[in-house]
This record gives sequence, structure tokens and C-alpha cells, in this order.
Amino acid sequence: MEFKFHMPTRVYFGRGCIGKNVEELAGLGSKALIVTGGQSAKISGALCDACSALERFNVGYTIFDRVENNPSTDTVKIGAGEAKQAGADFIIGIGGGSPLDAAKAIAVLSANDMEPEQLFTNSFPNKPLPIIAIPTTAGTGSEVTPYSVLTRSDLQTKKSFGNKDTFPVIAFLDPHYTQSQPVNVTINTALDAFSHNMEGYISTRSTPVSDILAAEGIRLFGCCLDSLKIGVFTLEDRENMLYASLLGGMVISQTGTNLIHPTAYNYTYFKDIPHGKANGYLMAEFLRFNYEAAKDKVENILKLTGFESIDAFAEAIAYLTGEAPRIDEAEIAQYVAIAMTQRGIHTNIRPVQSEDLAEFLRKI
Amino acid sequence: MEFKFHMPTRVYFGRGCIGKNVEELAGLGSKALIVTGGQSAKISGALCDACSALERFNVGYTIFDRVENNPSTDTVKIGAGEAKQAGADFIIGIGGGSPLDAAKAIAVLSANDMEPEQLFTNSFPNKPLPIIAIPTTAGTGSEVTPYSVLTRSDLQTKKSFGNKDTFPVIAFLDPHYTQSQPVNVTINTALDAFSHNMEGYISTRSTPVSDILAAEGIRLFGCCLDSLKIGVFTLEDRENMLYASLLGGMVISQTGTNLIHPTAYNYTYFKDIPHGKANGYLMAEFLRFNYEAAKDKVENILKLTGFESIDAFAEAIAYLTGEAPRIDEAEIAQYVAIAMTQRGIHTNIRPVQSEDLAEFLRKI
Repeated sequence: MEFKFHMPTRVYFGRGCIGKNVEELAGLGSKALIVTGGQSAKISGALCDACSALERFNVGYTIFDRVENNPSTDTVKIGAGEAKQAGADFIIGIGGGSPLDAAKAIAVLSANDMEPEQLFTNSFPNKPLPIIAIPTTAGTGSEVTPYSVLTRSDLQTKKSFGNKDTFPVIAFLDPHYTQSQPVNVTINTALDAFSHNMEGYISTRSTPVSDILAAEGIRLFGCCLDSLKIGVFTLEDRENMLYASLLGGMVISQTGTNLIHPTAYNYTYFKDIPHGKANGYLMAEFLRFNYEAAKDKVENILKLTGFESIDAFAEAIAYLTGEAPRIDEAEIAQYVAIAMTQRGIHTNIRPVQSEDLAEFLRKI
Repeated sequence: MEFKFHMPTRVYFGRGCIGKNVEELAGLGSKALIVTGGQSAKISGALCDACSALERFNVGYTIFDRVENNPSTDTVKIGAGEAKQAGADFIIGIGGGSPLDAAKAIAVLSANDMEPEQLFTNSFPNKPLPIIAIPTTAGTGSEVTPYSVLTRSDLQTKKSFGNKDTFPVIAFLDPHYTQSQPVNVTINTALDAFSHNMEGYISTRSTPVSDILAAEGIRLFGCCLDSLKIGVFTLEDRENMLYASLLGGMVISQTGTNLIHPTAYNYTYFKDIPHGKANGYLMAEFLRFNYEAAKDKVENILKLTGFESIDAFAEAIAYLTGEAPRIDEAEIAQYVAIAMTQRGIHTNIRPVQSEDLAEFLRKI
């Protein structure tokens, strides 16, 4: 038995968790930069709660609300400029994975004179500004990971960075913030969280601790499957999905992602498919590919989610994702070449060759 | 669903984990104070491994090896004096719970001009020195908790302090260090770890995350029961017990202990019974007392440890602990009065009154 565990973020989960733990926002400085996308931070009520909390302690804030889906290195450079200009002492990311990941990049760039491309060296002369993460979707898990995924147009894919200093110091998870998410976003983000738990579970980097967290996250996805199919969610579903997302984040903090994420990034980059849905396309093949090499774990995934076979599992997931866009052999070769350069792909329990991955994509 | 989670310690678990992660010791300063008891740090090889690692980075060190079992406030005051005199930048605790807990107290006192009694206010003007924890027993979990338990002769009991700054920054858990522990210490410390997992599980402060960690820790105690009975341990047993102890520490970091610990402290203070064994005396009554209020959890504990009834559970634990010393009514009144002043006692799922606790002690 040999493993590491590290997840230093202070997590507050539950209705009204910002207001109930408002003193956590004191002592981080006198000025915050709030990083959001265009909408969900406002609609969910999270932005309002965060601003009220800051005002209570006379902490000033500037809002940078220009984070796009799958944020680019250009965007985080602009955000860091705003943080520097505002004299921000800490960064608050509010939203789905994109604003949270952008907040991490901005926290590093605000404290260092470096170009965004240097983020991926994972070596920063100065410590990033403290980061507070407030998710409004139940998928990313970014609130408890050190990772930030940015779109690199130069490499035609998404790429991540992160080290022990880019964990958020505090995460506020209020299930009510996710209630304003539309059904399609709820499904796609639930698939993303499920993917984190599954990928970490079947990873060569899985640990005894990550496995018990992952198993619980997988079970909770199973509990929410019926609601995901009909697109109607109780508050209990919202809680379970946000908790499963938190668990998925804790898992990949230990294991990283595996082959689904780097492969799926292609569908997002080239076909504009939402991230979680793109992960969903690959799930059943992922289980088939790993069946012999990780039989106990694959069978446990089926058991925990209530399926008797991978075929039944495949059908349920396909119902949630819809059909994947057709891709031709040239595209397959391109996707494989890009995916094979990423770290995660080499942590799958069954080693993956380019030809395996091509076959994988042909079957989808 | 409402909970917090915080456990910031970087955990390295496995054979040779100090040597394999030696770079973690660089960057903490140029001088360490190593805090140990008289024996286990040396016999286990842990002290030698830590010193070699420090020497590799030219970090100087002073060894303070005068921590007794159940360390007193006087001892940590002397240790802090040595740390100040040596100009220590960080503290390394090596041993069972006593040296690890003393290391935390010394880390606070070295950075602050305060008397040991002020530790229990949990308010320290300056941050404690960074703490590295290296357990040589599988029981305390102190390597991943903020708590330090010290003997207060003025209060005739043990009392704990700890806040978010007293978590060790790094914990090295090498199961081989526990191999040199004699059978009785192995049994008593295993009971302590089991108690942490059970007490956290049946606590009003239990959380979804602490429950999955506790359930796994409880299951692992069950896996080791046969070995504990015969007093012969494989390396796998040692790994499982150290991992269960780690899980117990992670659990009580979230939940605190419950009624067993504060009640059992009396047996240690007045009758010199080892801490884990004293916890063991109370376990079966703890399950009986909570059966109606937390039926699912009590039944799950029995299932996870392989028992069909609390009576069967009681018999197995009594085999490990031997008989508890007889105490008279005056002693019972004294034990109850002291225990009722401690926080933990009020976190039991079924509320505890003085008379309940007296009845509890009469039955043992």
C-alpha cells in the first residue's frame, strides 16, 4: 500500500453556507477580484451572496465577468490585468468550471510577471493570491482541485496546470445555486462529475482514499439517474449531484483524470460539444476497454449505478448524451494524436496505444 | 445536507515514504527540533530515516526525547524552551500519540510567549511553527488532526486543544515503523483507532465525508481482528491498521471524539490504564446506549466488523482489553463529573446525562 493524499481546501457545503461562514472572508485582504462568466453567478444568487458577505467586512471588490466557456489564455491575461489594476488581495471564482479555472490562472498571473503560456510549467516564483471557489454547477469539482483547464489555441486543445498552491483556500458549495441551471447543463455537468469519479477509480494513480470517495460519487450518480432521464430535480437530487461533484474533485486531486478527459477535449475544441456531454460519449467504451484489466472495479461501477451489463449502461448514458457527431478517419487520427500527448491518457489501468484510442473513437 | 470538510495535511503513506519524498523536508528552514519519547522513534528506524533526510539537505536538528506517555503541560514548556534555544524553524514529532501531540504544543509555544495553560484557549497571536508528524504506532491519527491532548494535573484529566493552524503540514506514515511495537501496544492502539472511527460515526457532528471514511476504518479493524486476537501481524495487517488509524484521524478532524474518549481519560488518569485499552472498555456499552437512536449505524458497525450481535462484539473486545479495574460509587461520581465537562460528550447522537454515564460505568 503506497499513496499520497492532499486536499487542503476548507469546504463548506449546504444551504446558505456563505452567509453562515461569512467570517471566513475576513482576513484575506481589503480587495477582492470576483471572476465570473456572464450569467450563472448572477442568476443563481451566488454573486449577490458573495458581495453581501464582502460588504459586511468592508472588503472592496471588482467584478470581472468576461470569462467565456472553456476560457482562453488571452482571457486570463486580461483578468490578471484587472486584478493588478484593482490591487486585489484575493480572487473569488463564481460559476461553472470555466470561471473557477480562470480564477486560478488569474490568481497566479496577478502575483507573478509571467505570460499565460508559462502557467503550464507549474513553477511560479510567487505564491498565487488566495482563491475562493463558489460553484454554480454540479460537475467541475474545480473548487477542490488545484487544476485549471485553459484552451490553448496554439495546441488546438485544452490543457491544464496546477500545483499545491493553486488549491482554493475555501470552497462554498450551496446546492441552491445549482437550481437555476437548465436541464441540459445539469445533465452535462452530472456526466462530468461522474467521469471524474470513474476515471479516478480506474486510474493507475487511484489510492485507497480516492477509491472510497470515488465509489460514493459513482453511487450518487446512480441515485440521480432517473431524475436526469426525466429532467426534473428535487433539492435532494441537487444536493446529491453537488456532493458527487465535490467527491469527483477530491478524487482527481489525487489521481488526475484518465483517458476520457483528454480524448473528449477534441469534441469540445473541434465540434463545440459541451465538456460533460463529450465525456459521456466515451464512458461505455471506457468500461469495455478496461473490463479485463480492472474487472472488479468495472463490475462495481455497474453495481453501484444499478446496471446489469455495460450494454445497459451504454444505453442509459447515450439517452443522456444523444448521438456523438460523426468524425472521419482524418479527424480520428488528429484527435488521437492530440490526446496521446496529454498526461492523463497514460494513467489508465490498461495501457492505451494510439490504435486503441482510434478504435475507441470509431466505435462511438 | 450541511457539512464542513478540512484536512490540509499532505499525507505520504507506504514503505520508505520519508526517503521517497525527502524533498518535502527542504524549504521548511535550516533547523528542526525533533520531538520523541524515549524509545519507539529509535527502535522503529523512523528517527534514523528523518535525520538522514535532514542531513541530505543540510538541515540542522536538535532532539528533544523527553516526552512521557500522556505528556504534561510542564513537558511541552520545557520542549518549547529547547526549540527557542535551538532556533528551530520547524518541529518534527516522531512516535505514538504522545510525542505527536507534544510536538503540536511545542510548535505553538515556540512561536508565542504564552504559558501552556493558554494553549486551551485555541487563540495564538503567532502561527505555530510548521509541524511534521511521523507516527510509529497505528492508533492516534494525530498526524492528520489539529488536536493535541495534554495531561492537566490541575483538572485531573487530559484536555485537548487545536485549531486550523495546528494540523501537521506533512505526515509520513510508514507501516514498517509500527512493526517494532509489542503486541499489547499494537492491540491498544488499534482499539484507539477503532474508537476514533466509531465515535466519529455515531457523532452529531458526523458528515457524509466522515461517514465514508469511518466506515472504511471500521471495516479494516474487522479485517485485523483475528490477528489482534492471536497477536501475530503480517505486513498487510500493519498496513491496514495504520491506514485505519489515518482514517480515524481524518474522521475526528471533522467530528471530534464523542463520549468514549472523555470518559476513558479517567481510567488513564486515575488507574494508569493505556489510552486505547481504556477506550475499549466502553465500546460495547457505547453501541448498546446508541442502538435505538442510531440503529442503522450501530448495525452497520456490527456488519462491517463481522459480528451478529452487540454481545458477540462485547466478548471479542473484552478478549482484547481484559477486565476493567473495579471502581466504586465515589469514583464513578468523580469520573462522571470530570467527563461531563468535556465537549465531546455532548456530540453523541443520543444525548448523554450524568446518570446515563454513571450507569454506563457501573455496567463495565
